[in-house]
Amino acid sequence: MISIREVGPRDGLQNEAPVPTAAKVELLDALSGTGVRRIEAVSFVHPKAIPQMADALDVWTGARKQPGVRYSALVPNTRGAERALAAGFTELEVVVSASDAHNEANLNRSTAESLDDIAGLIDLVHGAGGTVEVIVATSFGCPYTGDVAPSAVRRIVERVAADGADRLALGDTTGMATPRRVRELLDVVPRDRPVLLHFHNTRGTGLANILTALDLGITEFDASVGGLGGCPYAPGASGNVATEEVVHMLHDMGYETGIDLDRMIEAARLAERIVGRVLPSGVLRAGPRSQIVSA
Amino acid sequence: MISIREVGPRDGLQNEAPVPTAAKVELLDALSGTGVRRIEAVSFVHPKAIPQMADALDVWTGARKQPGVRYSALVPNTRGAERALAAGFTELEVVVSASDAHNEANLNRSTAESLDDIAGLIDLVHGAGGTVEVIVATSFGCPYTGDVAPSAVRRIVERVAADGADRLALGDTTGMATPRRVRELLDVVPRDRPVLLHFHNTRGTGLANILTALDLGITEFDASVGGLGGCPYAPGASGNVATEEVVHMLHDMGYETGIDLDRMIEAARLAERIVGRVLPSGVLRAGPRSQIVSA
Repeated sequence: MISIREVGPRDGLQNEAPVPTAAKVELLDALSGTGVRRIEAVSFVHPKAIPQMADALDVWTGARKQPGVRYSALVPNTRGAERALAAGFTELEVVVSASDAHNEANLNRSTAESLDDIAGLIDLVHGAGGTVEVIVATSFGCPYTGDVAPSAVRRIVERVAADGADRLALGDTTGMATPRRVRELLDVVPRDRPVLLHFHNTRGTGLANILTALDLGITEFDASVGGLGGCPYAPGASGNVATEEVVHMLHDMGYETGIDLDRMIEAARLAERIVGRVLPSGVLRAGPRSQIVSA
Repeated sequence: MISIREVGPRDGLQNEAPVPTAAKVELLDALSGTGVRRIEAVSFVHPKAIPQMADALDVWTGARKQPGVRYSALVPNTRGAERALAAGFTELEVVVSASDAHNEANLNRSTAESLDDIAGLIDLVHGAGGTVEVIVATSFGCPYTGDVAPSAVRRIVERVAADGADRLALGDTTGMATPRRVRELLDVVPRDRPVLLHFHNTRGTGLANILTALDLGITEFDASVGGLGGCPYAPGASGNVATEEVVHMLHDMGYETGIDLDRMIEAARLAERIVGRVLPSGVLRAGPRSQIVSA
């Protein structure tokens, strides 16, 4: 069984033009009905920083909670963690960049400062009975400085593991991963706790990277319905790997995900209607390979 | 060294709205200057069947022939082969579908009838000092009938090999291949002569399929500059894998292709201008992973 975490409602919509609260609830509910077992639902960030997530609590309150689905929330700091815990989330995620330049640009502080903050956040969440996943952004390269040494990622992983992180995610934030980079990183990152991989399909390598990670024993991946989350101002550019493309390939290869592919494609159509643009998913356009046409 | 055959000028432009002869020559010349060693230049088909290639001889006459580049032409039958040979081509390609239904729909005759024709065509071309590559279309699935048994592809390969085919190509005509299908087919297809793989990225699996084929010892691939060749009436759908995406991944993995990636991206920009639509290539949009942006 491969564990797919659907990140469209959070990572996807956070990188699209803002959409109404009701549409977010509708998408979350549709995804909850696809058989997917994990959904990144919202983030509790400052509304001035990220207006797309200003209604996080309303979205979460309005959404149907499907038994058997693990819902998670991204938080930027202890204030966000408190809001997420108060809303009922027990699975929290927090981000740090392996690249100092990217951490400064995104979070306005150094990687080392973020790591200190995360140590405190983990204690807070553990004290409230929750768990914390640390997402290491730019794990496969930084758009500002280029290659990121796998050893730099390993040091961050070791640090947050020592501080009590329950799970880890390695993020290919701007689609710089290739099969070679996946192999080099997985060769050195400790895997004594769950490690999830998060790929973007910016340069077409998304499924090739997942294939490589599967070969190396990784069983958890992020994906975004319809490929939701690419910048709408760069036509053809794509963000997260599209969930239905990942599921389509995995199922044909004999892997189980628990996801109903037809329902996921329906959810991708809904996502497309909600954001009002064509999403970069081949399986959404062409249908699964099993779809017969007449001659 | 991985051998990439650039098919944009033929397979690509044949599946786009018609463009002027001068634009085709300009694209061919740009591609000849990228360092690519093989180019599928034109096809000699009936102009009523495929108006996009009606000016094949003019295109070929106008194009600069770059020393060290192998140019090939696709032909549908002996009449086309005679035209190609008269134009100076020595590397010819001919197509047969592994799926009878697809062969009937595309070529208006059965697979068995096509195979008989091909035997005669091979003799003709060999008699004139040329070589013939047989492209087995729908090798990974047929859009009309679904899965195609690897054993059916193997029988065709064995037949055309017995008839003297010099090279083979296995075509994923409508993007139905996945890593599993690549493995299953390569397990049974004889490789006593060169075997090239031709993938479409219709469902996102293009680079994953190439990665799998590389692992299994395949060293020859078709690719189309910019992903040229997707149907312009299905937004987001894509045809052939984009050459610059293939080259970008291969180079980062340490494989050599002889191709200058920057020049290939320039050629993709030209292809985009020529067809007047956004082409489905992430590397064309985002640039290579080595392209640094300012924070």
